[in-house]
Amino acid sequence: MYDVAIIGGGPAGLSAALNCRIRNKSVILFAQDPKTTDLHKAAHMDNYLGFPNSNGAYLLDKFCQHVNNYDVEIKQEKIIEIFQMEPGFTLAAKDDVYNCKSLILATGIPKFKAIKGEEKYLGKGVGYCATCDGPLYKNKKVAIVSKIAEGEKEANFLAELADIVYYIPLYKSKLSLAKNVKVLYQKPKEVKGKLKAEELVLEKDVLHVDGVFFLRESIQPSQLIAGLEFNNKAIKVGKNMATNIEGVFAAGDCTGKPLQVAKAVGEGQIAGLSAVSYIDGLKTI
Amino acid sequence: MYDVAIIGGGPAGLSAALNCRIRNKSVILFAQDPKTTDLHKAAHMDNYLGFPNSNGAYLLDKFCQHVNNYDVEIKQEKIIEIFQMEPGFTLAAKDDVYNCKSLILATGIPKFKAIKGEEKYLGKGVGYCATCDGPLYKNKKVAIVSKIAEGEKEANFLAELADIVYYIPLYKSKLSLAKNVKVLYQKPKEVKGKLKAEELVLEKDVLHVDGVFFLRESIQPSQLIAGLEFNNKAIKVGKNMATNIEGVFAAGDCTGKPLQVAKAVGEGQIAGLSAVSYIDGLKTI
Ligand SMILES: Cc1cc2nc3c(=O)[nH]c(=O)nc-3n(C[C@H](O)[C@H](O)[C@H](O)COP(=O)(O)OP(=O)(O)OC[C@H]3O[C@@H](n4cnc5c(N)ncnc54)[C@H](O)[C@@H]3O)c2cc1C
Ligand SMILES: Cc1cc2nc3c(=O)[nH]c(=O)nc-3n(C[C@H](O)[C@H](O)[C@H](O)COP(=O)(O)OP(=O)(O)OC[C@H]3O[C@@H](n4cnc5c(N)ncnc54)[C@H](O)[C@@H]3O)c2cc1C
Repeated sequence: MYDVAIIGGGPAGLSAALNCRIRNKSVILFAQDPKTTDLHKAAHMDNYLGFPNSNGAYLLDKFCQHVNNYDVEIKQEKIIEIFQMEPGFTLAAKDDVYNCKSLILATGIPKFKAIKGEEKYLGKGVGYCATCDGPLYKNKKVAIVSKIAEGEKEANFLAELADIVYYIPLYKSKLSLAKNVKVLYQKPKEVKGKLKAEELVLEKDVLHVDGVFFLRESIQPSQLIAGLEFNNKAIKVGKNMATNIEGVFAAGDCTGKPLQVAKAVGEGQIAGLSAVSYIDGLKTI
Repeated sequence: MYDVAIIGGGPAGLSAALNCRIRNKSVILFAQDPKTTDLHKAAHMDNYLGFPNSNGAYLLDKFCQHVNNYDVEIKQEKIIEIFQMEPGFTLAAKDDVYNCKSLILATGIPKFKAIKGEEKYLGKGVGYCATCDGPLYKNKKVAIVSKIAEGEKEANFLAELADIVYYIPLYKSKLSLAKNVKVLYQKPKEVKGKLKAEELVLEKDVLHVDGVFFLRESIQPSQLIAGLEFNNKAIKVGKNMATNIEGVFAAGDCTGKPLQVAKAVGEGQIAGLSAVSYIDGLKTI
């Protein structure tokens, strides 16, 4: 049971980790490949105070070095879903689960748009982890829409259980799929249904399915944890970076504009210190 | 007429200045001696991301160097009072006034406690600039309570106009005062009166006065500009660092806890960018 789990290895997540570790809390930080942070893409950066004429990759390296002085456990894993427990939270990665007392969302902004109907049927036939929900689709029809090669493994896994598995790859590379997986090279347009998802509408065809999985590099915070409140697309936070869910804090681009490094680092610090207060409060109960 | 005036040369003010200049706004920044920033006093600092094992004086130097790349006009002057004009604001320093379209308060936290009655009678006999308000006290009785040697000049100026000038120095050094200034070495306890200030209560004596001036190194934001809203002692701001007064933004320690550098830098950035949007909005009207 970690004191704090942080999702995101950009400036917001790293600043939160630093400030929690300085206060001696145990921290686990989940980050995908550093190249997935927006910071890494900034070719020229001159507005993080103290680093004139810099660039994102250099800054990220400096930030990571700083945090590495403090024994932060950094896992290069994508968190797929988060469950509220009593007390604390359970985080599901592809092959493992982790438990924590408090949580900091520092996921940046997701780099995709959900297709029509996707959010409406989330949990009602739409999912983001085939290996997690797969058993529900025994002898049924499922479609997997994937932007990442990892999706092939999920399709192969489902192919052992489900009746029909459609695979819609949104990337170009040689596929390695079980024979009974049906591949369709068409863009997905919409998820349709009544109470549950029933159809995946593609450019030309309409697939009649019981479930659709979307696999992408990033996951929207709204898909990570149920019940989180938003303001437009930004996670709603108070002055202390607390979200509407007790014990969950957020920082950085995921809380809204301006989408900038100094703001992310500052909010990461506040979220980190707020998580520390929250945990210390828990202790005295 | 500057686009933005910033009061404070700590991390919040410097970050605001940097972000406004990058957006090509004209900026004037008022800072007292750098040694007056809290940052300068931090002997060891390890929680500003990217600068492991650092200290305040070193960081402040790095921050100033960064800002110096951008032609920010930095004035080592204390702003004593701010007036809302139509449009914009006028800032009064001891010998000069400056005009700006928008304003960022990044004053840190004042390092003193007002005495009893001081805030109640502010503008009703209590003031912070004897040379500004002096003419009102022609042939009257005034007291000057001063923590700084500069107060002697103000006392001498008032001694030419007022009937009686009391000088209560709260520092130890040889005084250089006009003959008709009466010096009292007693701690001030309270300002009393009915509609206006009428008495300054000292440890032993009670002075019957028409006005009392308090001269200190720092000024409370509430004394700088009339009508500013507070939450406890912190300037009340929204997510974009706007205060309740249109065109006035705030950042850093003066907006409340946590009192930390990364938070100050992040808020300075947001306040800077918000001031830029505000000015650009003005332009299109
Ligand atoms: C081209 C470009 C130029 C820019 N230039 C500037 C500039 O000059 N100045 C400036 O201040 N800002 C600039 N920015 C913006 C800046 O990079 C962002 O504001 C900043 O990186 C936001 O930090 P963050 O920590 O909130 O998010 P990010 O840096 O995006 O980091 C979020 C991290 O969380 C990870 N993550 C998300 N979900 C999960 C999950 N479920 N499991 C595990 N990990 C997850 C992501 O993979 C990512 O690594 C620029 C951005 C871009 C793209
Ligand atoms: C001993 C000590 C140790 C600290 N250690 C840490 C640490 O380890 N980590 C950390 O993150 N933080 C630390 N801090 C806190 C940190 O220094 C502050 O949070 C930070 O400096 C706040 O920045 P600021 O810009 O809001 O205010 P400040 O740094 O206080 O700067 C405000 C400036 O505004 C000027 N000013 C105010 N009014 C006027 C006026 N009317 N006219 C002109 N100028 C004016 C002041 O003179 C001052 O220079 C420490 C503070 C102290 C005192």
